[in-house]
Amino acid sequence: MSYEKTPINTVNRKANKANYEVDVVHRIVNAASVLHVSFVPDVYDPLPVILPMIGFVGAYPGGAQDTQSKSDDEKEAAAAAAAAEPCVWLHGYTSSRFFKQATKESGPEANDDEDPTETDAGLPVCLAATLVDGLVLSLTPNSHSLNFQSAILHGRAHLVRDERERLWAMQAITDHVLPGRWAQTRTPPNGAERSSTKILKVRIASASAKIRAAEPADERADLGREDVLQSVWTGVVPMHTVYGEPVQSSYNRVKEVPANIGEFIKRRNEEGEAYARSVATKAPPK
Amino acid sequence: MSYEKTPINTVNRKANKANYEVDVVHRIVNAASVLHVSFVPDVYDPLPVILPMIGFVGAYPGGAQDTQSKSDDEKEAAAAAAAAEPCVWLHGYTSSRFFKQATKESGPEANDDEDPTETDAGLPVCLAATLVDGLVLSLTPNSHSLNFQSAILHGRAHLVRDERERLWAMQAITDHVLPGRWAQTRTPPNGAERSSTKILKVRIASASAKIRAAEPADERADLGREDVLQSVWTGVVPMHTVYGEPVQSSYNRVKEVPANIGEFIKRRNEEGEAYARSVATKAPPK
Repeated sequence: MSYEKTPINTVNRKANKANYEVDVVHRIVNAASVLHVSFVPDVYDPLPVILPMIGFVGAYPGGAQDTQSKSDDEKEAAAAAAAAEPCVWLHGYTSSRFFKQATKESGPEANDDEDPTETDAGLPVCLAATLVDGLVLSLTPNSHSLNFQSAILHGRAHLVRDERERLWAMQAITDHVLPGRWAQTRTPPNGAERSSTKILKVRIASASAKIRAAEPADERADLGREDVLQSVWTGVVPMHTVYGEPVQSSYNRVKEVPANIGEFIKRRNEEGEAYARSVATKAPPK
Repeated sequence: MSYEKTPINTVNRKANKANYEVDVVHRIVNAASVLHVSFVPDVYDPLPVILPMIGFVGAYPGGAQDTQSKSDDEKEAAAAAAAAEPCVWLHGYTSSRFFKQATKESGPEANDDEDPTETDAGLPVCLAATLVDGLVLSLTPNSHSLNFQSAILHGRAHLVRDERERLWAMQAITDHVLPGRWAQTRTPPNGAERSSTKILKVRIASASAKIRAAEPADERADLGREDVLQSVWTGVVPMHTVYGEPVQSSYNRVKEVPANIGEFIKRRNEEGEAYARSVATKAPPK
């Protein structure tokens, strides 16, 4: 399954690094610690704003929650469509500029049965997820690069109003950051916590990924120069995010760090290191 | 020295984490491996686009290069102002959409002596630099957080046309990624390399930083509950970017990895780890 290539998501520059596969785009979004979300604020038009936010991509298993205006058949179809549709879920505070504007532009409901590429409702946003996997050091500055994985998504952000869907998203966001964490904490959120938290879902209209995962690539002219080859070290410095030894809080009373935390740290560190090292020796695409 | 607080850069949400100091903003920009750059493309208005790019903030020591339209006094004043003005420098390919649009909106020259908050020339952009320093695990999902350092800058991107300034920026960007690298490679760039590379400088009109650098912070009600305290582990999982052992390319002929590369790796790893660990035990601001 791939995202359709349209003018807005087509990678023109270094098209051989482009990837439109849905799984690839989603994997990059969910591997990033932070998503960068861009929107155009109505009061400072046309200056775009970027906000770093926590979020993930996933499909709400509960389906559409609109029980008022539709026949049973329509409800079922909408539920099936919504269940199958992966969105990007973001959370934030009621009072923030971004959430206020998204609320205003969301309209009365999230329109789960509308085609996300056609609807006008919702706040237009661009999301970026970027992972840096290494410094690529070549013979000449111009061919220096990074090994990286980036995903750019366009869509419209809708305020989630259904309380079951909101709670699902709150739990999913928490468990996205650290699997199993929700069940280990004081839940469910109380009234004040619920009313101060807004959930947005971004219905993805378009997306693409770009990946560089290879050893350096130099021009033939430089590769043919003995003096250059003999004097410039070329290779990759692999990079990945390391999760360190947990540090307890001043008020922690639980002696043992829960096993899921240790497992998460170990898995992410091993996977990050292995990926960055393995791509450092791959041949670049032609 | 601080950036002026205006409606566009004032942090409303969690204002106690806000920081407007010029040095703090610049440090975060220069510590990030990737900057996220947002602009509104003229053809897909009003959808913003985000691009991950390599860049840094710094002041061009050469000063203004306009030698035609001014008196000596004006030239001197402009040179001094430009030399003192730190900009964000980005490089990219002539053919990319972003650089095409920035070129179009730059006007005939970079207007170094104009006030960057007042001029209309240049492409309006938002830049974001984000460093993630740890998972903050508290008693309840709502008070979970990240330790992070983020900087958001607004400004206008101008195409750099002066060849000395362009070359300075190319070298500075290379040495920003890895100090000392330019001098170790095949330089200067040849004609084809020069003509395919564009340099943009973003004159900073407004900027702010936001930093969380502390242990978890929970609500008083939860801190008073013995059952919660006894059952939920609280603390921080420090995070930082690790630079691994260099991996040579298939065509590398230089036996020893240059000393500056090893020193850079060691310093960045030590600093990253020390920072993430040290903030994990700090008291949160009231």
